Amino acid sequence: MELPEKIQKTVQLFSKLPGIGEKTALRQTLTMTGWRKEDLLMFSDALRKLCDIKNCVKCGMYSDDDLCPICQNPRRNSSTLLCVVENISDCLAIERSQTFLGKFHILFGVLNPLLGIGPDELKLDALIQRIKDEKITEVILAVNPSVEGDATCAYLKELLPRDVNINRIGFGIPMGGSLEFVDSLTISKALENRRHF
Amino acid sequence: MELPEKIQKTVQLFSKLPGIGEKTALRQTLTMTGWRKEDLLMFSDALRKLCDIKNCVKCGMYSDDDLCPICQNPRRNSSTLLCVVENISDCLAIERSQTFLGKFHILFGVLNPLLGIGPDELKLDALIQRIKDEKITEVILAVNPSVEGDATCAYLKELLPRDVNINRIGFGIPMGGSLEFVDSLTISKALENRRHF
Repeated sequence: MELPEKIQKTVQLFSKLPGIGEKTALRQTLTMTGWRKEDLLMFSDALRKLCDIKNCVKCGMYSDDDLCPICQNPRRNSSTLLCVVENISDCLAIERSQTFLGKFHILFGVLNPLLGIGPDELKLDALIQRIKDEKITEVILAVNPSVEGDATCAYLKELLPRDVNINRIGFGIPMGGSLEFVDSLTISKALENRRHF
Repeated sequence: MELPEKIQKTVQLFSKLPGIGEKTALRQTLTMTGWRKEDLLMFSDALRKLCDIKNCVKCGMYSDDDLCPICQNPRRNSSTLLCVVENISDCLAIERSQTFLGKFHILFGVLNPLLGIGPDELKLDALIQRIKDEKITEVILAVNPSVEGDATCAYLKELLPRDVNINRIGFGIPMGGSLEFVDSLTISKALENRRHF
């Protein structure tokens, strides 16, 4: 049986979201058809409002104002520690850990010649300028481990001023993880990253 | 860090959907913020359009016209076999099996005194009238097995005209299922429902 076009369209749009297959999309759409009109319109408006979401002019985080709450926070703003991340989700993950009190810089990607993402696309000039302007003394490269991520880190190390201390986030066995179930690459990285105990 | 209110609102609405926790809702919202404006507006419009979705005047299925494609289909329309289901998802599940060629009647619920759902809320009068008008000879109660579902079936059996053949959908071991992993209630039901081989 053919479902009405309105429903099919919504199912199709839902299934574009990460982790949503066609079956879940249908289930979600059918749930929504049972919602009150006000709730549906509220959802519709919320999506419309996502169109004009702003980014912090300094770090790139989503923000209501020109500067995001982190860049507005005087304690963090005055920090000389800068954490470079690939995207907003990674930044939020670090914030959730509540252990980093410096500021962020979001690259919005990693170098990827195949996709045509070079230093200009990542606005690396702006990063260098920021490091100089804000007298950053330490940069933590919290870039994910991948061929492109590693290349980006290597490129940044060459590019950044010599007097800045450049570190990459630590790799190894995750907390609560068991050696038995961790992949070989992580094990070899963890052995390489051993620390005096 | 506080995310902008626009994002928080969308996350909150997404997490109202079935199977979506707060983490997935955030992931989906952050994906959508990266979408093109046209796509976001299309999604917003699709949800707005769900407000005025119509139901088939006969069976209750979602429909673009007054009558749904099943009720418009002359071969199925003339059938004297009526399948009574709880909701639209159940109807779609039966349609997916492509083995039922009669027509449907959607109850939109089951009797549930605790939630105040009685025979009037399920419009059972309309069902009786439909069975008479359309000279239905067999009713299949494809109502899910639950206390409320069983009570609804028992109630319908009393209510429906005596000359109509009333059956309930079969319960037992699911195809591809293994006796080892099936719960005891299903096993006892399957034993009860044994058929000559």
